[in-house]
Amino acid sequence: MPEPARTVEGWHVLHDFRTIDWSAWKTAPSADRTRALEALDALIHDWQHAEDEGYGSYGVFQIIGQKADLLFLNLRPTMDALIDVETALNKTVFADYLLPAYSYYSIVELGGYTGDPEQDPWAKSRLYPKVRREEHVCFYPMNKKRAGADNWYMLSNDERAQMMRAHGDIGKKYRGKVLQVISGSQGLDDWEWGVTLFSADPLHFKKIIYEMRFDEVSARFGEFGPFFVGKGLDREALYRLFAV
Amino acid sequence: MPEPARTVEGWHVLHDFRTIDWSAWKTAPSADRTRALEALDALIHDWQHAEDEGYGSYGVFQIIGQKADLLFLNLRPTMDALIDVETALNKTVFADYLLPAYSYYSIVELGGYTGDPEQDPWAKSRLYPKVRREEHVCFYPMNKKRAGADNWYMLSNDERAQMMRAHGDIGKKYRGKVLQVISGSQGLDDWEWGVTLFSADPLHFKKIIYEMRFDEVSARFGEFGPFFVGKGLDREALYRLFAV
Amino acid sequence: MPEPARTVEGWHVLHDFRTIDWSAWKTAPSADRTRALEALDALIHDWQHAEDEGYGSYGVFQIIGQKADLLFLNLRPTMDALIDVETALNKTVFADYLLPAYSYYSIVELGGYTGDPEQDPWAKSRLYPKVRREEHVCFYPMNKKRAGADNWYMLSNDERAQMMRAHGDIGKKYRGKVLQVISGSQGLDDWEWGVTLFSADPLHFKKIIYEMRFDEVSARFGEFGPFFVGKGLDREALYRLFAV
Amino acid sequence: MPEPARTVEGWHVLHDFRTIDWSAWKTAPSADRTRALEALDALIHDWQHAEDEGYGSYGVFQIIGQKADLLFLNLRPTMDALIDVETALNKTVFADYLLPAYSYYSIVELGGYTGDPEQDPWAKSRLYPKVRREEHVCFYPMNKKRAGADNWYMLSNDERAQMMRAHGDIGKKYRGKVLQVISGSQGLDDWEWGVTLFSADPLHFKKIIYEMRFDEVSARFGEFGPFFVGKGLDREALYRLFAV
Amino acid sequence: MPEPARTVEGWHVLHDFRTIDWSAWKTAPSADRTRALEALDALIHDWQHAEDEGYGSYGVFQIIGQKADLLFLNLRPTMDALIDVETALNKTVFADYLLPAYSYYSIVELGGYTGDPEQDPWAKSRLYPKVRREEHVCFYPMNKKRAGADNWYMLSNDERAQMMRAHGDIGKKYRGKVLQVISGSQGLDDWEWGVTLFSADPLHFKKIIYEMRFDEVSARFGEFGPFFVGKGLDREALYRLFAV
Repeated sequence: MPEPARTVEGWHVLHDFRTIDWSAWKTAPSADRTRALEALDALIHDWQHAEDEGYGSYGVFQIIGQKADLLFLNLRPTMDALIDVETALNKTVFADYLLPAYSYYSIVELGGYTGDPEQDPWAKSRLYPKVRREEHVCFYPMNKKRAGADNWYMLSNDERAQMMRAHGDIGKKYRGKVLQVISGSQGLDDWEWGVTLFSADPLHFKKIIYEMRFDEVSARFGEFGPFFVGKGLDREALYRLFAV
Repeated sequence: MPEPARTVEGWHVLHDFRTIDWSAWKTAPSADRTRALEALDALIHDWQHAEDEGYGSYGVFQIIGQKADLLFLNLRPTMDALIDVETALNKTVFADYLLPAYSYYSIVELGGYTGDPEQDPWAKSRLYPKVRREEHVCFYPMNKKRAGADNWYMLSNDERAQMMRAHGDIGKKYRGKVLQVISGSQGLDDWEWGVTLFSADPLHFKKIIYEMRFDEVSARFGEFGPFFVGKGLDREALYRLFAV
Repeated sequence: MPEPARTVEGWHVLHDFRTIDWSAWKTAPSADRTRALEALDALIHDWQHAEDEGYGSYGVFQIIGQKADLLFLNLRPTMDALIDVETALNKTVFADYLLPAYSYYSIVELGGYTGDPEQDPWAKSRLYPKVRREEHVCFYPMNKKRAGADNWYMLSNDERAQMMRAHGDIGKKYRGKVLQVISGSQGLDDWEWGVTLFSADPLHFKKIIYEMRFDEVSARFGEFGPFFVGKGLDREALYRLFAV
Repeated sequence: MPEPARTVEGWHVLHDFRTIDWSAWKTAPSADRTRALEALDALIHDWQHAEDEGYGSYGVFQIIGQKADLLFLNLRPTMDALIDVETALNKTVFADYLLPAYSYYSIVELGGYTGDPEQDPWAKSRLYPKVRREEHVCFYPMNKKRAGADNWYMLSNDERAQMMRAHGDIGKKYRGKVLQVISGSQGLDDWEWGVTLFSADPLHFKKIIYEMRFDEVSARFGEFGPFFVGKGLDREALYRLFAV
Repeated sequence: MPEPARTVEGWHVLHDFRTIDWSAWKTAPSADRTRALEALDALIHDWQHAEDEGYGSYGVFQIIGQKADLLFLNLRPTMDALIDVETALNKTVFADYLLPAYSYYSIVELGGYTGDPEQDPWAKSRLYPKVRREEHVCFYPMNKKRAGADNWYMLSNDERAQMMRAHGDIGKKYRGKVLQVISGSQGLDDWEWGVTLFSADPLHFKKIIYEMRFDEVSARFGEFGPFFVGKGLDREALYRLFAV
């Protein structure tokens, strides 16, 4: 059996995608809409507090297209804390105007292919990342293929390490343009990893994913789930979105 | 034709996943909510009685993400007893606030690859396990692949036994951290097996599944369905969850 | 082109799976519920009449899990008669408490791999079977694979006949425990065959399917759809199920 | 690049499958039901007119099982005419009792493998076929496989022509029993072709599809979508179906 | 690692497919319908303004079949502008009569296989195309396959360039008949590219896609998603469509 790469884990992550029930929102009495937005405000205030106190980070994004309208992204030290975040959202009156769309649970992970992750000087910032909620976001889950001759888990650690290094080299070219957060979800959700990218310009999402598709680790072994892309919403943008 | 491994069967298992209709719950009159929770209480009381009397076990878990909100896990000596559990739940007024999410029917199974299962000194406790409802849960269904050269059922019993032993060795490393219950569902549900893990820390789910993915039986032959992960709810936690 | 095996056909079969709308049922006025059950009674009376007169058979089963709650299984001499059965059910007030779940249309079939089906002394009882509605039921649709080297339809008749004989030998071991009805659905529904098993003990479903998975015809060529498992409901059990 | 076969095209075809909302129908006031059936009558009158004038054909069929209840099948000289047919149906009060089920858009096609389709003496009747609405119908969409060594589009024209001739020979055996209409849908809908069969006896659908599955073009290259089977409804049968 | 082809990007594109809620529309008070159409008018007026000012293009199309009824196609310089288009549509009272159907987000792209895209004299018109909203439309998303020996991304740039040139030659045969807009969606949506075709005659969609399927790049490497086909609606046609 090939030696698994070492991994080090950080915060637990919940990507919680929702669709806005616009018909319900538009026909709701104005006072109800105000109460709903106040409830959302209170929620975000709590999330901000968690971030300020160093036990989490968060972002609210508007997703393009019909897959979802909103992404509530939260990171916390434990799964139980994330379930509490989800339950608190569901209990608000604001949630009465939301429909389920998609969700993903994973844990931030540093892989050991390119050195000892615990010695990585940026390990702490990478394991406990701050959401760039003023930028654009791209999220997708993925697997490493296990089909006939293209079976990632039957390769030796050396083969995998070499491919991961080449893969990482492409990532480095986008440093400053794209921030990438890798979270593992084996045993936690339906794909093996979640990938969350942040960038000021969504064109970078297209450029980096296109270029990476040609490296062997993606070309031969990458299996990709749905892609969700959106833009960060600050308080003002949130209120503008819900103004009717 | 290769010799099938011997199996010994224990309790029948129903994983019954539901989604909470939060909008209905929040707008229900307080008296109706009280009645609903009393009905749930009565149900759990019956399940507890079955466990006390030695003819079953149960647990209620809150699932993270949008796949489901609750898992009602029950084990009983027969399928008919499980259908009765399911019907009783559906007839409660509590069920009016639930939506279907997913379910899985299987029978606890000990495989004969690593010795005679009937001689296993822990056979009884493994065939009639007690749900660790104070811990976290991970459930997923799975198949053994039958594709071209990677066809589990075309291997000799020796080849399969050798791979299953290596697989079991990984499991042993997690003894005390992860309790694993294997149930067979060929002829009973859409996948060949259900796997239910219990652990105090959900990080162990990620660690054990990741490590196992590299052994040949998973790497070449494992096909995995959806993963459901959650935390155990005792009576107090249940009431806290439904307090609005 | 390999010679297709001869087949002889009997009754047409409709597996009609429905989900009970428990919320609607529980909140319906008692008089409406009574009327609904009377309509179901009348329907079953007609089905019984068809069986008594020798032009059909039927059974009502409660399905475990969330895929469906009820299976209305009917056999008739023609497709048109089955459409009439389906329409009659849909027109009852009882059907107002049902939701669609799944259905399957096929025709009972004897294959010619193991001798001339028309000379089979049990051909008549096998082509026009009586539903064992007092037992448990297992239904699943299936295909024979056509993928690269594993292409059932590119094998010679001899190769197929040899494998089908070995397959049949396993079936014989379960004689008296499991009754198997094979119905063909090429050109009629989304899979190539439907398999309906009856047994006093659902554990036999697990045992026979597990054992068969190791014979070459299943291991290399079997592709399986969803599995539905349940228990037969007589009139008393039906009334008990709907008592609220 | 292999030479594509020549094709000649005839009428555009819309298979419009709908489910009857029986609960709404049964609880509608009698006058509303009468108005709805009159609207359907008017629609069919227009379709009949198109057929009488030679610019179309149509049929209404009742589909067995839960995939759909009704098939509205229309052929017209242009896509725009079919969109108008669809819109007219949607605008009727009758459509308020229908739910979407499935649809398929394609264009009747004669392939050039077995001679010059334009010289085919029956070309006109085959390109502009009359729906056999008094018979049974079977519809399914299909692809030609493009997987590894089984790639239809990488074969030479000669290889494809030879296989199509053998395929056609089976079809000829069913002449007088089964009428087959092939329509191409590359660039128009999700599969490459639609196949519509008409027969007095649905058993013929099973027989012809079963036999064809063994010829190489189906065995190695056929990929099949969902199958819809039903019986033709004349005006009297339509009224009987909707009588409650 | 093979060298990725250079790409140049133009406008961002949102294909926004919706289904008309005909029951709601037909039963709405006439004044509400008038208000809804006025809201749609105002929206289109804004889109026209964007086109007139050179910062976008748009079209409204009626889609055949049940996948969708309407396609709102918009091109803009940024993703944020497209999100604003989507939000503005959702906020109208007209949107209360629409249901979600499908959407696709991509960015117009010129590939570098057939020369330097920036030197292409038509580059500007191709990167910032004007929607042919008076014609018919065909949209489908697609991937390049990565399966065993058929792995597009493992080919050398030369091999890919040669196949793309042959592919382009077929496209040239349809010049004047079919206008093709290619948009890349790696990192943006669930497939790698979106293809939008415009033509006066939908038969050309069938002809060009059929012919292209035989060239190696499609035959071996093309994976195709759902196809949506429809006709352009000008203001008069829109009002005719919604007249009840």
